[in-house]
Amino acid sequence: MSFATEAAELDARDPLSGKRAEFDLDPGLSYLDGNSLGAPPRTVATRLEEVIRKQWGGRLIRSWNEGWWNAPERVGDRIAPLIGAAPGQVVVGDATSVNVFKAVVAAVRLNPGRTEILLDAGTFPSDGYIVDSAARLTGHAVRRAAPSEMAGAVTERTAVAVVNHVDYRTGRRHDLPGITAALHAAGALAVWDLCHSVGAMPVGLDAAEVDLAVGCTYKFLNGGPGAPSFFYVPARYQDRLDQPLTGWAGHADPFGMAEEYAVAPGVSRARTGTPDILSMLALDAALDVWDDVTIEQVREKGLALGDFFLRCLDGLVPGAEVVTPRDHERGNQISVLWPDAGRVMGLLTERGVIGDFRPPDVLRFGLAALYVRYRDVLRAAEELAAQA
Amino acid sequence: MSFATEAAELDARDPLSGKRAEFDLDPGLSYLDGNSLGAPPRTVATRLEEVIRKQWGGRLIRSWNEGWWNAPERVGDRIAPLIGAAPGQVVVGDATSVNVFKAVVAAVRLNPGRTEILLDAGTFPSDGYIVDSAARLTGHAVRRAAPSEMAGAVTERTAVAVVNHVDYRTGRRHDLPGITAALHAAGALAVWDLCHSVGAMPVGLDAAEVDLAVGCTYKFLNGGPGAPSFFYVPARYQDRLDQPLTGWAGHADPFGMAEEYAVAPGVSRARTGTPDILSMLALDAALDVWDDVTIEQVREKGLALGDFFLRCLDGLVPGAEVVTPRDHERGNQISVLWPDAGRVMGLLTERGVIGDFRPPDVLRFGLAALYVRYRDVLRAAEELAAQA
Repeated sequence: MSFATEAAELDARDPLSGKRAEFDLDPGLSYLDGNSLGAPPRTVATRLEEVIRKQWGGRLIRSWNEGWWNAPERVGDRIAPLIGAAPGQVVVGDATSVNVFKAVVAAVRLNPGRTEILLDAGTFPSDGYIVDSAARLTGHAVRRAAPSEMAGAVTERTAVAVVNHVDYRTGRRHDLPGITAALHAAGALAVWDLCHSVGAMPVGLDAAEVDLAVGCTYKFLNGGPGAPSFFYVPARYQDRLDQPLTGWAGHADPFGMAEEYAVAPGVSRARTGTPDILSMLALDAALDVWDDVTIEQVREKGLALGDFFLRCLDGLVPGAEVVTPRDHERGNQISVLWPDAGRVMGLLTERGVIGDFRPPDVLRFGLAALYVRYRDVLRAAEELAAQA
Repeated sequence: MSFATEAAELDARDPLSGKRAEFDLDPGLSYLDGNSLGAPPRTVATRLEEVIRKQWGGRLIRSWNEGWWNAPERVGDRIAPLIGAAPGQVVVGDATSVNVFKAVVAAVRLNPGRTEILLDAGTFPSDGYIVDSAARLTGHAVRRAAPSEMAGAVTERTAVAVVNHVDYRTGRRHDLPGITAALHAAGALAVWDLCHSVGAMPVGLDAAEVDLAVGCTYKFLNGGPGAPSFFYVPARYQDRLDQPLTGWAGHADPFGMAEEYAVAPGVSRARTGTPDILSMLALDAALDVWDDVTIEQVREKGLALGDFFLRCLDGLVPGAEVVTPRDHERGNQISVLWPDAGRVMGLLTERGVIGDFRPPDVLRFGLAALYVRYRDVLRAAEELAAQA
């Protein structure tokens, strides 16, 4: 059976094939960059027009009491089931890097008397910059270790380790429950960055007793460019989380205008400033695509897309060096080493196959299972073969 | 001449009367809360639909290189003339409280060897919460002083003072050039919060040699609920500003994915995370209403609205105690002490006169000169008289 026949058959029997129609995507485009910027669900534009005209224009200031003020917790509760969190533990707002700062400072305060922060050696760079900056303020040392070696690297000096669930570059998935348990065994806390796993696979935060987590909503959650990120604070820390960006939105009585800060109950204590409603409600609309699918279904198709893509690459581009694990210890992306990766991705993009590249030599293909078709990944392999 | 006749005449010869049609506002509504949430310019909904469908949906990831990545500086340059800043000194992004945190930590680092932060005693509470939190991390003491007494309160221990240009509660405008000069004379820096003055009056940051400033875009700039705030970093500090939220968007080569942070040139060093594009471009669209008016015109009308409102109050509600300065040392708002202010504002709102109240007993009426009519402030006085 040819790859083309196989792709057609896989698409024909894909239980998620109908979901692509819920996205505003050119049918002729093979969009394999949903791990960087998810495609827009069709509901977003119409919902946002309604928010602007009816809620903002029609109700004006009154809308703050008609659903806006609590949107960060309400939208957070929609993300919670995707990451294995019980309700009331996720709040949405601020950029991911801002939430990493809050999480790291809060974590070292939860674990006083220890002097060091352990950092994923392959972390998305922004997390590293923020950890360095936070450590400079709190007086902690920063030491880097590969996630696979953290169990051996953690010591009695380690207050917290910051780990990426999925490596942004290679697509490798790290062992979240195992690493968390190893950190706990040494008395350290685990802060996980879920940017490249949320919406791609089950995460299981509560089950693994993760301490704090942050993640991005503009990749596999399709919230829009720069959409607000989320912050997970499990119930067991909600009476003592002490985060550094104590803006009025995290106050117990924000409209009381008290001079002294008094922290809000529950996960709201992780909030900072006035919630950014247009972006928040765009994300809210985008989350509707999850109403009739489970994260397990998405994961199953994402892995199947990856397996098929790997076979296509092996067959059509035998020289391609895949750096993503061929077993299922990966996110929903496949990364390929390629000389001149930037130029080649430019050519593929011109031809309607959009992935991205990460310097110096990595081509990344994201497999957002809600809209990527088997024929898209075959086409990516064919286009790559034409460049080989 | 009756107040009604006078209001009609003032509206008839108001050079800005045509601007109200550019906003999506019920003609029957007297909206006097633009100092809390500005009304939506009509362009916002259509622009955002275009951004979602054409830029996000049509161009997808490519849009980052087609105007999105530099939007924080580009939109900042549109705000700059409203606050008396030369181009290249304003960047948009993050909540106001997040930018206050960046500004305060950066300011104490610009002025090392000093041990204290001076805080506006009447500050909007969130700034105070953030200053306390920043001071806890940097080891500084916090001391409160009224802005009018800062010249006497500043000492050789003061690293920086954080001052609100307009008092959110009383509407009093503080002497930005004079206080800044007094702080400088004592070797202290001046960080100004412009939330209640930007878009209401000229600010003159460059002329006053203000050190750093932050401000809000969802009040008199009509950027939308929770729209991203702005951060002013004058050119003279752009080679050494050392702010604590060092996310990848402030990196000199963000897509280089280097392990070490290397700060971006210019005002971009004040950036943190991925810019929130939907909210940013909603604000961008909202700023179009400024294309054919000057901030001086807006200020002139704002003061005239206030003067007329004060006369209406004196005539119709003689018992009303106005806490806003009757001379022009005020922002574009009038605040009235009123027992049971919360209940009364609820009644006014039901009758189509929307202001807000601040506990325990302040009624606030915002005079956003781009859409408030003289007959709106007369109506507010009449409705208040009916409650007296």
